[in-house]
Amino acid sequence: MNEKESKVITSRDTDFAQWYTDLCIKAELVDYSSVKGCMIMRPYGYAIWENIQKELDKRFKETGHENVYMPLFIPESLLNKEKDHVEGFAPEVAWVTYGGSEKLPERLCVRPTSETLFCEHYANIVKSYRDLPKLYNQWCSVVRWEKTTRPFLRSREFLWQEGHTVHATAEEAMEETKKMLNIYGDFAEEVLSIPVIRGEKTEKEKFAGAEKTFTIEAMMYNGVALQSGTSHYFGNGFAKAFDMTYLDRENQLQYMYQTSWGISTRIIGAIIMTHGDDHGLVLPPNIAPIKVVIVPIGKNADAVLEKSYEIARGLRAKGIETKIDDSEKSPGFRFAENEMKGIPVRIEIGSRDLEQGTCVLARRDTLEKEVVSLDNVCEEVVRLLLDIQESMLLRAKTRRDAMIHTATTAEEMDHIIEEESGFVLAPWCGNRECEEKIKENYGITSRCIPFDEEVHKEKCVVCQKPAKHMVYWGKQY
Amino acid sequence: MNEKESKVITSRDTDFAQWYTDLCIKAELVDYSSVKGCMIMRPYGYAIWENIQKELDKRFKETGHENVYMPLFIPESLLNKEKDHVEGFAPEVAWVTYGGSEKLPERLCVRPTSETLFCEHYANIVKSYRDLPKLYNQWCSVVRWEKTTRPFLRSREFLWQEGHTVHATAEEAMEETKKMLNIYGDFAEEVLSIPVIRGEKTEKEKFAGAEKTFTIEAMMYNGVALQSGTSHYFGNGFAKAFDMTYLDRENQLQYMYQTSWGISTRIIGAIIMTHGDDHGLVLPPNIAPIKVVIVPIGKNADAVLEKSYEIARGLRAKGIETKIDDSEKSPGFRFAENEMKGIPVRIEIGSRDLEQGTCVLARRDTLEKEVVSLDNVCEEVVRLLLDIQESMLLRAKTRRDAMIHTATTAEEMDHIIEEESGFVLAPWCGNRECEEKIKENYGITSRCIPFDEEVHKEKCVVCQKPAKHMVYWGKQY
Repeated sequence: MNEKESKVITSRDTDFAQWYTDLCIKAELVDYSSVKGCMIMRPYGYAIWENIQKELDKRFKETGHENVYMPLFIPESLLNKEKDHVEGFAPEVAWVTYGGSEKLPERLCVRPTSETLFCEHYANIVKSYRDLPKLYNQWCSVVRWEKTTRPFLRSREFLWQEGHTVHATAEEAMEETKKMLNIYGDFAEEVLSIPVIRGEKTEKEKFAGAEKTFTIEAMMYNGVALQSGTSHYFGNGFAKAFDMTYLDRENQLQYMYQTSWGISTRIIGAIIMTHGDDHGLVLPPNIAPIKVVIVPIGKNADAVLEKSYEIARGLRAKGIETKIDDSEKSPGFRFAENEMKGIPVRIEIGSRDLEQGTCVLARRDTLEKEVVSLDNVCEEVVRLLLDIQESMLLRAKTRRDAMIHTATTAEEMDHIIEEESGFVLAPWCGNRECEEKIKENYGITSRCIPFDEEVHKEKCVVCQKPAKHMVYWGKQY
Repeated sequence: MNEKESKVITSRDTDFAQWYTDLCIKAELVDYSSVKGCMIMRPYGYAIWENIQKELDKRFKETGHENVYMPLFIPESLLNKEKDHVEGFAPEVAWVTYGGSEKLPERLCVRPTSETLFCEHYANIVKSYRDLPKLYNQWCSVVRWEKTTRPFLRSREFLWQEGHTVHATAEEAMEETKKMLNIYGDFAEEVLSIPVIRGEKTEKEKFAGAEKTFTIEAMMYNGVALQSGTSHYFGNGFAKAFDMTYLDRENQLQYMYQTSWGISTRIIGAIIMTHGDDHGLVLPPNIAPIKVVIVPIGKNADAVLEKSYEIARGLRAKGIETKIDDSEKSPGFRFAENEMKGIPVRIEIGSRDLEQGTCVLARRDTLEKEVVSLDNVCEEVVRLLLDIQESMLLRAKTRRDAMIHTATTAEEMDHIIEEESGFVLAPWCGNRECEEKIKENYGITSRCIPFDEEVHKEKCVVCQKPAKHMVYWGKQY
């Protein structure tokens, strides 16, 4: 196998799952290790995560949130305090039973999520209404003992952020829950060029212990849904279980109201499966660790190399991360390698270009090339990056919308499931039995009740009773 | 207990250990939880850590290092591969034995450090000399099952960074080991105002599995040493255990040479114990999350408040993090609260100041006050912050140097141990027996063999044989 062949990946239309795994490895995002079900995030994959962190952390801090760090371990008795929560998580946690050679008096789970730790802390530090709200977030890794795993999408350990807030009133907590969902939604669309549907999870699909769960749902290239970020409203359920009270202005003890919200490295899977193609990863400029790669072409090309460095300096001065790929490999090989990594813009420049005062700009998203003057190459790159960012969102949205099908009757539902992939938007009466029947019949689950759809006279596609909600249904990762 | 009293901490000269714990809690750096031996890092403590991360990460990236993320777990068989390493760590690791309700076929330890994982990864991804060096780092938490714990200094879980690099030659690896130690040393001095001694650990004190360990050693206010950062040279010991080979330019298989280096949240303990006083924390400006607090004084003071905001805008425009403390509490209470948090500069401004066109600058390190004109308050603050940063280092160095005592004979050694606290600089023959005897006799251990001290005709303070090294000895955290 020569170097070139080693870069080829399965076509996404031939075998989407294999394409995905090939891409993760060949773009050097992740590697496997002897730790089953856990992945190694390699420098390029981790650099994408660092950019995600930077963008989100800025938005969190701008909205008054502060970062903290809670312990990795949760004593079994603490996890057990909220009934629904422990039922949801206990079956999939990793248990520490020994410290050195000594058996522990109580088992500790490796945190699958940290509601219980934040509850205990808030109960401890919040005394009066003056201490509220508390708007905390932490960046950490969590562990869930999954049976089958895939890079980014499902692994036994993954990186994420988890926000946990407490408030004096239900209204304020609900406002926070929605605000954070919209921060996720805006981030996905503005930074990752991923269009998302914002909505509420059904009772059946909500988070263990939450009163309400809101979600952003993205559709991958193959029509499968990826839940890309969630925000939970807890009311005062945990507050009652953990005795989280505060003195209000009238000196009365009240329970706090609570939220949590999280986004994980899973979102990197969404980037890959929304934008990637048979040449590899395609990164939106706003999240790309390297935005421009300059490929000098030809031998004896001191002048070309010099010009390349000049262009790189100009781009970096504008804050555009730029790499020069002057390795000894053939231009075609270098093109392929940088395409695999999804670098948004490639600048090709050779001796003849230099004579003519031009260079070639190749955009990764469409693979189109254009010749531009060397005099204003930096401005052209800025323009092109903006264009790529916007048109990636637009293309993803157009593709997604074409794969959303509305059904108002069982017959239409049958037909869509038979003929199409993607999401079905269909009316639902609100009963769990009908939701479960849809899963049984069609193998799809409710993604969310969208914020922006209303029911009028529609009837539930299962029971024909008046519908309470329009619901997006689909297969999910 | 009123609010004011609740801020009072034990005097550091009365009970240094209690002073330290009081300060950690009252400055709101950490909190305890029901997870024994683990701490909660509260927003203010975590913000200091974020600044440490930002400063170090910049220095790592400037020297060509890339961040990655390795799994949290290490299978027992992988940990066991390097004999010295496993002997050093196995007694203090936490073991995961169950995933959900299923017993694991092999125990997994929660990483105490990640050499073994990096070794396995490097063996996998490095094929030829073209792939070298690999300069990786990760920011994460690690777990060591300590019996007695104290905030920052010793806890069962702590945050750190661990750099792991592989190189083609021993020389290159050794150069990296020293380069990273100097990055730590410069960071401690330039950013944290903590003077450090740079040197080499003795055979007895080096890291489990390393050929050589270099260290930066700081001295706390009470004369006790704190090992503040270490850098290890592994030769190819791990490379042989993990079969880490590469093809050199002559197409011959060679073993890689390896380093690792780390700094942890422990360094926050060093900041506290180097600079703190009876009023609380004292932060060097270069690491302070808030550099200036403005305290408007007096009632009906709209104009004062307006001026405060104007000054804050001016300072923020210069990149100086500024807080306005306009709470309803008394000025004295607010002064004390912000002193507890170690904010480097306080600006006091009242109606009379405003009339006179002046305000008061109070520096946290010396508690001195000066009156400055409102016309150039921002420039005065910039000057003061620089002065504080420098003079904190100078004062810490003067205090430390006064507590370093040189002994050339056993009698001098006896006398120093009897009369003084701090470090002893004494000649040593290089034999482990003499090192152990010093520990037995005096209760102190070797801190390091400093880079900048040479032996001439000194004799070992224990055996009287010719000394090989001058060594710093001391009590340690």
